Amino acid sequence: MHIHGGDIYTYQNMLDFSANINPLGIPESVVRAAAAGAAASASYPDPKCRRLKAAIAAHEQTPEEYVVCGNGAADLIFQLALAAKPRRALLLAPGFHEYEQALRTVDCQVDFFYLKEEDGFRLADAYLEALTPGLDIVFLCNPNNPTGLAVPRPALLRILEKCRDIGARLVMDECFNEFLDEPAAYSLKPELSAYPNLFILKAFTKIYAMPGLRLGYGLCADQALLAALAEAAQPWSVSIPAQEAGLAALTETEYVARAKALVKDERERLQDALAALGCRTYGSMANYIFFRSVPGLAEACRAHNLLLRDCSNYQGLCPGYFRAAVKLPEQNNQLLAVLTAVLAEF
Amino acid sequence: MHIHGGDIYTYQNMLDFSANINPLGIPESVVRAAAAGAAASASYPDPKCRRLKAAIAAHEQTPEEYVVCGNGAADLIFQLALAAKPRRALLLAPGFHEYEQALRTVDCQVDFFYLKEEDGFRLADAYLEALTPGLDIVFLCNPNNPTGLAVPRPALLRILEKCRDIGARLVMDECFNEFLDEPAAYSLKPELSAYPNLFILKAFTKIYAMPGLRLGYGLCADQALLAALAEAAQPWSVSIPAQEAGLAALTETEYVARAKALVKDERERLQDALAALGCRTYGSMANYIFFRSVPGLAEACRAHNLLLRDCSNYQGLCPGYFRAAVKLPEQNNQLLAVLTAVLAEF
Repeated sequence: MHIHGGDIYTYQNMLDFSANINPLGIPESVVRAAAAGAAASASYPDPKCRRLKAAIAAHEQTPEEYVVCGNGAADLIFQLALAAKPRRALLLAPGFHEYEQALRTVDCQVDFFYLKEEDGFRLADAYLEALTPGLDIVFLCNPNNPTGLAVPRPALLRILEKCRDIGARLVMDECFNEFLDEPAAYSLKPELSAYPNLFILKAFTKIYAMPGLRLGYGLCADQALLAALAEAAQPWSVSIPAQEAGLAALTETEYVARAKALVKDERERLQDALAALGCRTYGSMANYIFFRSVPGLAEACRAHNLLLRDCSNYQGLCPGYFRAAVKLPEQNNQLLAVLTAVLAEF
Repeated sequence: MHIHGGDIYTYQNMLDFSANINPLGIPESVVRAAAAGAAASASYPDPKCRRLKAAIAAHEQTPEEYVVCGNGAADLIFQLALAAKPRRALLLAPGFHEYEQALRTVDCQVDFFYLKEEDGFRLADAYLEALTPGLDIVFLCNPNNPTGLAVPRPALLRILEKCRDIGARLVMDECFNEFLDEPAAYSLKPELSAYPNLFILKAFTKIYAMPGLRLGYGLCADQALLAALAEAAQPWSVSIPAQEAGLAALTETEYVARAKALVKDERERLQDALAALGCRTYGSMANYIFFRSVPGLAEACRAHNLLLRDCSNYQGLCPGYFRAAVKLPEQNNQLLAVLTAVLAEF
């Protein structure tokens, strides 16, 4: 099994900077709604997630029939692979591991476009040339995980058009979009209707800090694909607590605004402090910071009861790359204190 | 999308006899545990479900490494299809729809062994002869859904051996096993170690009345298959509320005993009363009753705010077959009152 961040079950009682979730924690209203959902769980969940889909559509300003819900965004990635059965795919490296894992289940050939250290891990213009006929599906995470760098709309539009021209589906993972200072400047949502080859992935997991409840969704105009997704999955993949939690979460606008402001301030402060400690940073725009430091740093932090995401198991990375979540100011101070102590010993 | 029972979202405010769950409802301890799980859901679930697996292993008296957990048993059916990629399968008809749906996702050829009205839908001896080389996977539900009939161990053992001899995996769905008067007399659990081709499916859904929480598990000695299942699914398919609920549920032994006694009494009473109303019954041994009556009965009951499972969309059945859950005595009285009124009009 691939090792992810957030493994607080192997490493207990640690300050966890290895998972990328909203530092404000799960909203009280979401916990209450999920608990009410648990009490109502002597019934099957609505397979069509009707109330939740309507709320998501209103929230995203998209037609209801564009919405599909899943047991976390990861569930939808596997459903996509199984429903579309692509033969050849292009992924970014480094990138989220589950795209590749899901594509392997249907024996898809997986090509990687390598983000380069010398480009500061920015998506190079050469990417457009890598989008060639024969590709069936292209995954882009924006902002990318683990780098935290986002591709702006003009470049995204060129990518989307190129994908359409070569007959490829573009899966745009916007799970971290809400943490950007200007989400709309980095989203392809307005293009859904004009580009049925566009599938946007979103999650409640990160922005509402509810990874334990499992709720993600997709937005896509291609009704045949959505029907194929439904055929490729069990009818009851989204639990009642998750559906109820999602409904409550969508009303938490003040909480999201507060989180964004907090993350922005702390991200800048952390990034500066990391640079001052001799770590190389790359200008993350998200709620996590990707940086280069000494190999072995994560193990050394663990000895101080602090978990970093060791990124050496990402395709295209080697030991020495790490990701740290942006958390609350006091927690971030602890991170800096541990890093200061640990790096002094290297 | 296939129409299932339990669709209380399309048909609201109805007395639901179309879903087969424990009539005692979800235990209070399970609701409390799931709610506590919701409050802890700012973390990712344990991908390995370590505490839950240990508890299931103790409950089932099997080694911990035999246990795999899923987002409901249905999740594991899809994982099995994707991980094993069988080319040819044998299913019972009528039977649970998701076996076929899952197998179709990997383009598996699906053969049906038809249970016959003239045999009272009992599994005929000819079944053994239908287990022929070339079959990769065989699904058996015991007791079968929707018929409620269970195959006893001596016959199961012959089936299991034959499957091994022809190189087929036997997926034995024992999701309703606990509702039988003598569960052990109809289970293949003791054979797990000797037969790595045996995969037993179980669910918390039915016996603990928690379909909304999504939790099922599998038992299998074949470690290569279990590793392949893990590769074919996202790491976090089982939510924290579900894992916590499962831990609480396994302590509810008195509740299960009470449910079994209640279901036994009410099943016999309902079956007699249905026969007296002119419905043909088949001796269900489970928490639901399969019967034949007039086509159109389910629609007529719906007009009386009562949902039956219309079984006409099961492979091998035609209009006129129905399934009714065994519920609480007062609810069962309502069922009989509605059926009496409705059948008088046909």
